[in-house]
Amino acid sequence: MISLLDLRARIESGTLSPDAAIRGARAAITKRDGSLGAILRTAPEGPVPAEGPLAGIAVGIKDIIDTADMATEHGSPIHAGWRPRADAAVVARLRALGAVPLAKTATTAFAGLDPCGTANPHDPARTPGGSSSGSAAAIAAGLLPLALGTQTGGSVIRPAAFCGIAAIKPSFRLIPTVGVKTFSWALDTVGLFARGVPDLARALALIVERREIETEAPSAPRIALCRQDFAGEADAEALAALARAGRAAERAGARVFDLALPDPFARAWAAHPTVQDFEARQALAWEYATHRAALPPVLGAQLDRAQALTAAQYDSARRDAHRARRQLKDMFADFDAILTVSAVGRAPDRATTGDARFNRLWTLMGVPCVTVPVPGDGLPLGVQVIARFGDDGRALALAGMIEAALRMRD
Amino acid sequence: MISLLDLRARIESGTLSPDAAIRGARAAITKRDGSLGAILRTAPEGPVPAEGPLAGIAVGIKDIIDTADMATEHGSPIHAGWRPRADAAVVARLRALGAVPLAKTATTAFAGLDPCGTANPHDPARTPGGSSSGSAAAIAAGLLPLALGTQTGGSVIRPAAFCGIAAIKPSFRLIPTVGVKTFSWALDTVGLFARGVPDLARALALIVERREIETEAPSAPRIALCRQDFAGEADAEALAALARAGRAAERAGARVFDLALPDPFARAWAAHPTVQDFEARQALAWEYATHRAALPPVLGAQLDRAQALTAAQYDSARRDAHRARRQLKDMFADFDAILTVSAVGRAPDRATTGDARFNRLWTLMGVPCVTVPVPGDGLPLGVQVIARFGDDGRALALAGMIEAALRMRD
Repeated sequence: MISLLDLRARIESGTLSPDAAIRGARAAITKRDGSLGAILRTAPEGPVPAEGPLAGIAVGIKDIIDTADMATEHGSPIHAGWRPRADAAVVARLRALGAVPLAKTATTAFAGLDPCGTANPHDPARTPGGSSSGSAAAIAAGLLPLALGTQTGGSVIRPAAFCGIAAIKPSFRLIPTVGVKTFSWALDTVGLFARGVPDLARALALIVERREIETEAPSAPRIALCRQDFAGEADAEALAALARAGRAAERAGARVFDLALPDPFARAWAAHPTVQDFEARQALAWEYATHRAALPPVLGAQLDRAQALTAAQYDSARRDAHRARRQLKDMFADFDAILTVSAVGRAPDRATTGDARFNRLWTLMGVPCVTVPVPGDGLPLGVQVIARFGDDGRALALAGMIEAALRMRD
Repeated sequence: MISLLDLRARIESGTLSPDAAIRGARAAITKRDGSLGAILRTAPEGPVPAEGPLAGIAVGIKDIIDTADMATEHGSPIHAGWRPRADAAVVARLRALGAVPLAKTATTAFAGLDPCGTANPHDPARTPGGSSSGSAAAIAAGLLPLALGTQTGGSVIRPAAFCGIAAIKPSFRLIPTVGVKTFSWALDTVGLFARGVPDLARALALIVERREIETEAPSAPRIALCRQDFAGEADAEALAALARAGRAAERAGARVFDLALPDPFARAWAAHPTVQDFEARQALAWEYATHRAALPPVLGAQLDRAQALTAAQYDSARRDAHRARRQLKDMFADFDAILTVSAVGRAPDRATTGDARFNRLWTLMGVPCVTVPVPGDGLPLGVQVIARFGDDGRALALAGMIEAALRMRD
């Protein structure tokens, strides 16, 4: 994998030019993406910015995010060949920092649950997860140092865990969704994928112009280990990885204790699909009305069911979410972060993109989540560190601490 | 002016066909829009839906709202000729109801403050207000029975008041903004223009699938009359119109009393431009980076200044807004609605689109606002009725009551 910070250090010391770094990413895509299917298309050749804190950084852009110089197809033949006039806000910001939005990465159709053609770099028979499939796979395969994805259920944290990389779903709307195809406006969150947590922290701090995100370093943190029982049981291997991550945090000086989330969180978790699908029905109304037959099976059926949802059900689901959000804010007085599994277990086969059951609640809460891989045998497993709304720097600092501690022996 | 409810009654009784109603709107545009400049383009001729609760209703769509069958240019040469692939969510919803999104209406560039070429139907030397200039003018000139606009500062309520028509800025995100060009994602609100309040209530209830919006009828309401002193002073004529509206409400059975908004509201009012401009800088980052010289003068200078805003200033402004929003919610225990001026006074000349100082706070609060004209001599004046977040039906019911009472003599 390619480290953003390593690349930047070489560029700053003059041993690598931004132009050569971008050429390297192009060469890696040409050489290694063939069977992977992470990359849909690359930007036309052109001058590479020589200046800027992200000069030389090639970025993968999930194909539901608008790019003025490349088609944006939302993973669907309905939008085949569509070219936006403008860049999405986050893409324009990356360019302002000197980065090169180099490639559009494969997405499931409209960031839904139907698998797209991307393979997991660790095992081509397995899913890389979804819906940000290409972004996660491109980082894991060493094609790019940074990629953008989005999460509405678990579409950033889950694919990162399946692919053995780091990712952050930041606080809701910290990165603007302007120019991102909407699935659910109350949930859609732009996130970042990279090799490790320090890379994520640098990129996020620059993108959102909050340098404190990269510099926060809490001492003797309190970490609440949480199994999310209301969401069902994770695989034994995932729970073992969670326990290992908890021990690693303790070795790094954290106080770790168990947390059972009270009832309002079970209700909020159950409310997530109602919020999501009531909004998706409106957000995708044109596609549904004019191209129903061209929608893939899972999304088509999901929108069929969503037609029956009522405004009263939506309002009730929103109230459940609001109540849990307020309670969570208070609970963070007692700990600095929550530590939980990033997915049910290892990547399943490619018939699905996996299950978002351990991600949903946190997307609905709008809180920052950072996933780090737990080293071990076989396919990757991840754990996620969750902080209070707006405490993205803390989530990253604690995730970085656990990431580093996990590299040492148990 | 054309009444949506009248048209629908004629269609339901079989004396008018939806097709003839749409032909009537096309003919009115051809005949009367020449010097007005409200309409930019009309939809290609095609079959008119015969069924649906809004069949036969021609709708004007502000040109920052995506339409699949017409260009969407955001009022700017930067987007000249741009054709979205999909309809905005609200446009798709209108089609599902049988309505015909017939015409794109003139907007200021990116819904900013620079005037566009539209005249006020009551006096061609005056502004129709902005940024939803064409939508307000098209209703006032009797070209269409319904039009969509958006409000970030005062872009729905102010032009409606200047043009002597009714309009609603609903609760924040009640109508989805999917497919609407973003200026500020925390503020942008899709609204409706029509001849009168009953038309608005029918249209909104159908669009958002909440029939109770049309049927709410509070008895003996408590109305707080508010001058918004922190925003400066309204013109004497506007204050006289507010007093008249208060007396009309009393005649209709309301208890009317004065309300001075406490200090947190002055702070929230002052915070609005920071929230708006910090987000506009990100939302329009592509346009600013690649086409700065093509931006009109007021917007260009506004975005120049916005580059200096910091994340800390934005966070502080958001906290001020949040505090006021919570306090406002509690205050609504003591009254059913707030009644205040819709604008500083009558429409000024076309050098500006007028001033949003009496609208801003309510946009930031996310609460429903309904403006109704106050009959009198000279150019129109309006007052707005403001209810609690989510109480759009109550805002409409009370505005309808005042609208009806104002038609009787003082």
